[in-house]
Amino acid sequence: MKFDVLTLFPEMVEDYFKYSILKRALNSKIIELNTINPRDFTLNKHKKVDDTPYGGGAGMVLMPQPYVDAYESIPKSDKSITIMLSPQGEPMNEKIVNDLAQYNQIILLCGHYEGFDERIREIIKPKEISLGDFVLTGGELPALCIIDAVSRKLEGTLGKIESAQNDSFSDGLLEYPQYTKPRDFRGLKVPDVLLNGNHKEIEEFRMSERIKRTKLRRPDLLA
Amino acid sequence: MKFDVLTLFPEMVEDYFKYSILKRALNSKIIELNTINPRDFTLNKHKKVDDTPYGGGAGMVLMPQPYVDAYESIPKSDKSITIMLSPQGEPMNEKIVNDLAQYNQIILLCGHYEGFDERIREIIKPKEISLGDFVLTGGELPALCIIDAVSRKLEGTLGKIESAQNDSFSDGLLEYPQYTKPRDFRGLKVPDVLLNGNHKEIEEFRMSERIKRTKLRRPDLLA
Repeated sequence: MKFDVLTLFPEMVEDYFKYSILKRALNSKIIELNTINPRDFTLNKHKKVDDTPYGGGAGMVLMPQPYVDAYESIPKSDKSITIMLSPQGEPMNEKIVNDLAQYNQIILLCGHYEGFDERIREIIKPKEISLGDFVLTGGELPALCIIDAVSRKLEGTLGKIESAQNDSFSDGLLEYPQYTKPRDFRGLKVPDVLLNGNHKEIEEFRMSERIKRTKLRRPDLLA
Repeated sequence: MKFDVLTLFPEMVEDYFKYSILKRALNSKIIELNTINPRDFTLNKHKKVDDTPYGGGAGMVLMPQPYVDAYESIPKSDKSITIMLSPQGEPMNEKIVNDLAQYNQIILLCGHYEGFDERIREIIKPKEISLGDFVLTGGELPALCIIDAVSRKLEGTLGKIESAQNDSFSDGLLEYPQYTKPRDFRGLKVPDVLLNGNHKEIEEFRMSERIKRTKLRRPDLLA
């Protein structure tokens, strides 16, 4: 899977790949990262990428020329999708993550500060995805969330040790409570059922906890 | 505002503060960042922080002792709140961000891989927040999203240039389309109404675009 990230802050994105699972996935060539800075595509001598909005108002707007030219410079594969990170997009969920994992190239368009000139949308026609109903400084963190979530789904990224099979949402329910050593921590004990080695009882306990927890915390997921 | 982040990957969090608005907010002392690594609180010689789950299953679970001891080492202010980043939590939204901005200390608990021993929840009793219905490798990106979103709300973080006043969700509607130079880009023109200097007409155009866009993309926000 190749990730191309258009961003004015390439290091912000690249830094995250120095650690943990994405580092490993990058090293074992399961994923590939390419950052493109629209600032390198400016035609003005000050390398200006934004300007004030027509019609007035606070904030700056990303100009279409550097952004569209930067986008068009990216070689596209036959199974490529382009995502704009924007609070106006479809809220991200596990289904979108699974769909994205079927492509072999994901191009991520990050804005910063005030967002995109509308013509960037009109020309590139990206799928727009929002992390949720809140506003961030830029699209870099949402882009990293997509890269992280999608990479977890790719064969070979997670070892057996970090398996995705019991993740929350993998089947529409929240996860069961987990316990590890010690058996007694400050008087709080691991439930007996997890210690008796009866796999059927353990399965039942965990499923009933998942349903109970989902009912309590996220009844909307059961509906 | 002080952010204390419990994480096994402190650099992953610290790196993000090298750039853009959070760097500026940190430098101007609007925010303060402190990372705490539970690994520094282990009592075993291998500095092991996780172990296999009781009852079996794939993955590793964070042991309660290093995590709880690390948490208890943090000095708490009188207006402190503790957040656990977890797919089982309340989905993050702009209201939560605004609420969090009222505190003067936010302690963020990040898991990695398989998540927390249940007794960490029982002892610390954090508020649990989820970025959305998808699964990430760890709580570090969600923690950064919270820090970024909350910091934007603090007096002095955003200059006039990046004003938050017209953000999506600031009043329950998506943002209006933005345009900047040039007036004509590849034949796509800035709408005339934005060029005529009539502020009332501009306001009306923008509000009608916001309503139209919200109806089309996120009818749930209007309900």
